[in-house]
Amino acid sequence: MKKKICLAPGPSELYFTVEGHVKAAFREGVPSLSHRSRLFEGYYRAVVDGLRALLNVPSDYTIAFTSSATEIWERSIQSLAAETSHHYINGAFSKRYFEIAKLSGKRATHTTVQDGSGFKTTLALPEETELIALTHNETSTGVAMPLAALHDVRAKNPTALIIVDAVSSLPYPNFDYRQVDSVFFSVQKGFGLPAGLGVWMFNSRCVEKSLMLQEHGKFIGTYHALPALWSYAEKNQTPSTPNVLAIYLLGKVIEDMLQKGIHAIRKETEYKAAVLYQALEKSGALKPFVADPEWRSSTVLVADAGERQADISTFLLERGFEPGEGYGAYKKSHLRFANFPTHSKEQYECLADAIGAWAESHRR
Amino acid sequence: MKKKICLAPGPSELYFTVEGHVKAAFREGVPSLSHRSRLFEGYYRAVVDGLRALLNVPSDYTIAFTSSATEIWERSIQSLAAETSHHYINGAFSKRYFEIAKLSGKRATHTTVQDGSGFKTTLALPEETELIALTHNETSTGVAMPLAALHDVRAKNPTALIIVDAVSSLPYPNFDYRQVDSVFFSVQKGFGLPAGLGVWMFNSRCVEKSLMLQEHGKFIGTYHALPALWSYAEKNQTPSTPNVLAIYLLGKVIEDMLQKGIHAIRKETEYKAAVLYQALEKSGALKPFVADPEWRSSTVLVADAGERQADISTFLLERGFEPGEGYGAYKKSHLRFANFPTHSKEQYECLADAIGAWAESHRR
Repeated sequence: MKKKICLAPGPSELYFTVEGHVKAAFREGVPSLSHRSRLFEGYYRAVVDGLRALLNVPSDYTIAFTSSATEIWERSIQSLAAETSHHYINGAFSKRYFEIAKLSGKRATHTTVQDGSGFKTTLALPEETELIALTHNETSTGVAMPLAALHDVRAKNPTALIIVDAVSSLPYPNFDYRQVDSVFFSVQKGFGLPAGLGVWMFNSRCVEKSLMLQEHGKFIGTYHALPALWSYAEKNQTPSTPNVLAIYLLGKVIEDMLQKGIHAIRKETEYKAAVLYQALEKSGALKPFVADPEWRSSTVLVADAGERQADISTFLLERGFEPGEGYGAYKKSHLRFANFPTHSKEQYECLADAIGAWAESHRR
Repeated sequence: MKKKICLAPGPSELYFTVEGHVKAAFREGVPSLSHRSRLFEGYYRAVVDGLRALLNVPSDYTIAFTSSATEIWERSIQSLAAETSHHYINGAFSKRYFEIAKLSGKRATHTTVQDGSGFKTTLALPEETELIALTHNETSTGVAMPLAALHDVRAKNPTALIIVDAVSSLPYPNFDYRQVDSVFFSVQKGFGLPAGLGVWMFNSRCVEKSLMLQEHGKFIGTYHALPALWSYAEKNQTPSTPNVLAIYLLGKVIEDMLQKGIHAIRKETEYKAAVLYQALEKSGALKPFVADPEWRSSTVLVADAGERQADISTFLLERGFEPGEGYGAYKKSHLRFANFPTHSKEQYECLADAIGAWAESHRR
């Protein structure tokens, strides 16, 4: 049987070079390598230098590793907000970030809009707001914040730290990192790696804030508190034994992406998204769940298939495509399509053709 | 150049079957697998059933996954102690567990003895002690608690929860799990896997305690609080995306160990330890750092080489053996030898011979 192309939005299809890098890693003894060795420091630095080059991350930013993006939700709240955080919620994952703030004992507030909708982020929040949590790409519903909306938050909220969850969009978005304070992601989405590593990028305002909370005797976490991650990162090290293999692999995939060029990756992502959204709209029966084209994600495309979800899903599976189910309440009515760098233009063209063929067979 | 045998006490030499299992994992699409799938639940269950069979873990115990044993230090303190914990400290790692309790805001107390020594654990602690932290095998110095000492703690402290750090000793020790409440380890030591997964085993007393703290509005953590790990584990699931590949690999390695038999693994471990300790004692120049044979580890053997450390280390390296350096202050005077299931009897016999040859050449 031909291997199916995994289009679930993560864990998703591996970046096409990963298997080769795993073989090399075993040859080089990476899985037995001490995280206190010079070689490991080199692998750490490769990720840092690579991300700076690929995403244009300023030198003012530290790049640290956690076990997942979920962990970064928790650590960012613990280390950066003594009392208050505000969350823009439009789906299950932005809501989970808010819930973790509540569980952490913060006075967390939120602006919630209907699933699939955008929001005005340019309103000024109360001045006491210490941290503003933005989900750039809501994986559950396929809404992505336009960059202009995201970059506008700072102007109205000059003092709050702005933290961006970019789990299922990077490396695609071209953020202006100076308009925010922290951006994070996990590797099993756009970077096409096995799950088990989160990457947390934060600027010096974050470091200062967490050090200040620490000085004031606030609880900011333990071995993975931001100041610990930061001080080890200065030496290209981690506070405890990390997923060494994943860090090595991430460095290699970033190198491959630099070879291809971020411009080409972004153009291809947009081309593939356009091809698929067009196929959805032409199909008659499937429609993009996000009504406003401005707020539609280019990396996680969600189609509302209503009662025909199982039918179209089977049709696509028979043709070698494995879309993701809907999330939560939409499990049986939505289809989610990951559009990550590993998914090729040819695959997306064939996918669009398959959707067209399905629609055609239903019109007859 | 011949590949060297890694004898550092973790990340250490991979279990000899791991590379084959990684290949199979890629063939089967494990790295792209959703952690909400039936297949993943099967991999989770394979670890649980396998550990119960291999280590004789009672059915009353839950088995959950974290990113590392360091994380379990933090989570166990957060979820199981509202105010107080007591720590038996005889090296860097048992001390770090204590420090994490302090950072977590607990009134943590400790019994500290000199590095390399054992302690009387059978004294009764103040009744208010909620949690007693025991490090079965102190990786920094090569001290292991005799099982009788470990099992005796409960008799004098019937109410406190007894948590055992068995990071660098399992699967070797034959614990009586009914005499303690929780045992944990990470996979890059005795199980011979790449780093990036912690395994936390805890009984129903732990679940009840954490639920009670939660009901009383205490902070017990967020997505990885014990009740969250427990309720997902009931479904063979995890609260957030875990290191799926590592869970799959752990299940496979446990299967291999079951094939070999835990009795054979334990006998071999003891044989190899005896061979090496004898070689150290006969060498004249190297001596076991732990003076009392009763308290010497069978899985992490530490030799005090004094000023000759670099010399013997080079000698062994030239013969294909890569021992670990000493830990912390002992970096340049100790050698540490991991004696894990993947290290064969033949390797240990050759290692002992090499130490003998080095000693001989120095006597001339």
